[in-house]
Amino acid sequence: MSGAERLTASEAARRLEAGSLTAETLIRDCLDRIEARAEVKAWCWLDRELAVAQARAVDRDGRPGLLKGVPVGVKDVIDTYDMPTQHGSPIYAGSRPFADAACVALTRLAGGIILGKTVTTEFANRHPRETVHPVNPAHTPGGSSSGSAAAVADFQVPVGFGTQTGGSTIRPAAFCGVVGYKPSFGEFSRVGIKMQCHNLDTLGILCRSLDDLSLMRAALLVQPRRPIDRSASTPRIGFCRTPAWDHADADTQALLERVVSRLSAVGATLEDVAPAPADILDQHRRIFEFEAARNYAYEYEMHADKLSPALRDGLLKPGRELPLSAYIEAIECAEMFRAGLDDVFDEFDVLLAPSAVGEAPEGLGSTGDARFNALWTLAWTPCVNLPAGTGRRGLPLGVQLVGARFRDEALLDAAAWIEARLGS
Amino acid sequence: MSGAERLTASEAARRLEAGSLTAETLIRDCLDRIEARAEVKAWCWLDRELAVAQARAVDRDGRPGLLKGVPVGVKDVIDTYDMPTQHGSPIYAGSRPFADAACVALTRLAGGIILGKTVTTEFANRHPRETVHPVNPAHTPGGSSSGSAAAVADFQVPVGFGTQTGGSTIRPAAFCGVVGYKPSFGEFSRVGIKMQCHNLDTLGILCRSLDDLSLMRAALLVQPRRPIDRSASTPRIGFCRTPAWDHADADTQALLERVVSRLSAVGATLEDVAPAPADILDQHRRIFEFEAARNYAYEYEMHADKLSPALRDGLLKPGRELPLSAYIEAIECAEMFRAGLDDVFDEFDVLLAPSAVGEAPEGLGSTGDARFNALWTLAWTPCVNLPAGTGRRGLPLGVQLVGARFRDEALLDAAAWIEARLGS
Repeated sequence: MSGAERLTASEAARRLEAGSLTAETLIRDCLDRIEARAEVKAWCWLDRELAVAQARAVDRDGRPGLLKGVPVGVKDVIDTYDMPTQHGSPIYAGSRPFADAACVALTRLAGGIILGKTVTTEFANRHPRETVHPVNPAHTPGGSSSGSAAAVADFQVPVGFGTQTGGSTIRPAAFCGVVGYKPSFGEFSRVGIKMQCHNLDTLGILCRSLDDLSLMRAALLVQPRRPIDRSASTPRIGFCRTPAWDHADADTQALLERVVSRLSAVGATLEDVAPAPADILDQHRRIFEFEAARNYAYEYEMHADKLSPALRDGLLKPGRELPLSAYIEAIECAEMFRAGLDDVFDEFDVLLAPSAVGEAPEGLGSTGDARFNALWTLAWTPCVNLPAGTGRRGLPLGVQLVGARFRDEALLDAAAWIEARLGS
Repeated sequence: MSGAERLTASEAARRLEAGSLTAETLIRDCLDRIEARAEVKAWCWLDRELAVAQARAVDRDGRPGLLKGVPVGVKDVIDTYDMPTQHGSPIYAGSRPFADAACVALTRLAGGIILGKTVTTEFANRHPRETVHPVNPAHTPGGSSSGSAAAVADFQVPVGFGTQTGGSTIRPAAFCGVVGYKPSFGEFSRVGIKMQCHNLDTLGILCRSLDDLSLMRAALLVQPRRPIDRSASTPRIGFCRTPAWDHADADTQALLERVVSRLSAVGATLEDVAPAPADILDQHRRIFEFEAARNYAYEYEMHADKLSPALRDGLLKPGRELPLSAYIEAIECAEMFRAGLDDVFDEFDVLLAPSAVGEAPEGLGSTGDARFNALWTLAWTPCVNLPAGTGRRGLPLGVQLVGARFRDEALLDAAAWIEARLGS
């Protein structure tokens, strides 16, 4: 092992370009790490030979594109033409889609290598699967992007794709102590990603460096790379406890207050802001139920016996009974929330908020609580989780930074400013 | 032949429920009609035996649900687990998806029968295929939902699914002389429909009666059926020529002016309204290009040689070169347009607008011009095409009615009021 598995995607891309690293070495190091750390159970499909063959082909081609052979783990609700896509469900056991998802095709086009498929909860919903927390296997890694978060945290792959409908990217990123990113709704293509809720689903990225987000954005948007601007001016920060604040545990509340103090001390302007109505999570829930109940019509009709009771009876059944008028009302509330946020972002560059209730909970029966994420999914705003120390059990904590919709680059600049001043 | 193929879906459902018609008879009549009129070339996949077997099963089950055995034609960009889905493209020749699209599963759940797959242009884009106009085979039926529109107009099936990203449902409905419906964006599930543009794609319905729209809405939304209210009060109508008015031919301009006079004469309040900025079609075009170029990443990378030059070089290539900032600007313009429309619909119940430039053009090389549709696709508002006489070549003309977003039922009520007063 050469240790290349520890590199971030940006570092690896630089060394691959310079020729001081080959794609094959990088892929082999990642594969060795995965083998050595099989107990994390982050992968549901991996073909060592296919991965090495892809790496050799990229090396032969002169390591093209922006990614130059950087490997990516793909959440198993995202289609790959050369690997199964099983959605964490027995319904899709062994299923092989015809085509790559757009994000997969764009990754390959940029010279990236699809390393394998990472574990998802059932249909990126609540019912958990086998992945454990890489720091303490008695704890959940979070979900639904469980495998991508655990694999990235554990140095098994530098970048993983996640998705977020409630809190499925930011929450596992916080639990596992990695950078998590949910872009502005609608920016990244969702073609070939199993659709759960068309007004909420967002492709997310898990990685170990903010720079990797600028790299992956360029690849996925087919745009020139726009590096993070670390000379950007001091951001105006709004501190947003959200209506769920009382559910945050003592570790999380203390962390957020500490971050507020520290950032104020280094010159940031910090003000409290409360843009979300008290019932915002109810609106999210209604949209989730109504859309999922219709979007999973095939699975519900044809394979109800293979759905978890949590999904079938806890989500799809009540969703079918929801009247259209309640759904429309929830959509209209969401639109008002978004319009109000536009005004908030006239005054602030970034909002600071909790990423999760606390550390990753013990046990694998639940992937944790999404109440600090669902409102931002509904908001369509870009969000980043920044790792920020550990809690009482020695597991990672994070803070969430929220930017204005379609101002993702400004959010990444502000996140870099804050990261540089957070300390350890 | 018993003539059941001439029934609308609502009439057929009533007779199926009463027991004066069996699903098998209805399906056989439709199949016979399709055979007799093979020259229309509306179907790209049809399995007579599978269709009859489905009908017998529905009869055996007591003709359940709202649809009770009513057959539906499914545009071939929509997945079916028991039939190929080929997207009008050689890339997907013979491809069989794993699952039904949600709209297909919901149709089956409501007791509907999937009769077969109807011809689409390549990926519901511009490159035409073999379907001809049922009245005059030298003319295009319109597109991209060419097969569904032609089959419904020609009494081959009472209901067809279409999709609309530019004008792909309303335009062929107008050309073929049937009712076309594009619902409020986001109401009908798009799961299992090939995604072209996530901010524009809408599942549409082609049929021969407004009542069929209330029937299909109930099935697709899993809601109790809400019949059209034909006692609704006189609608306040806004006459919207749109910025494309000068492109409407003399037949269309005369038709619209005639409809305005007639509706005024019977007591409707009619006022001119111009809610769309002059560059609205440019904004639609930018969103189309940017999204399609990324959404078709797999096809572009892996099968560029099998794409039509019109799609590959005319859409995807310029779309790749479009900067993200231009896309975001277009999305923001679209949002302002929608907000302005909300205000317009405080004053009007429905807008009256052209459905198309004129009659279906001669030749099969193009499916016609979408400039009277694309702005309403971008608007996310529900639209209906009502057949309204014929043009100088004896081919159908239609008028377009546009409602407030999420007020589809009010639009259908207003459309019924107008239909009853249009005369022939």
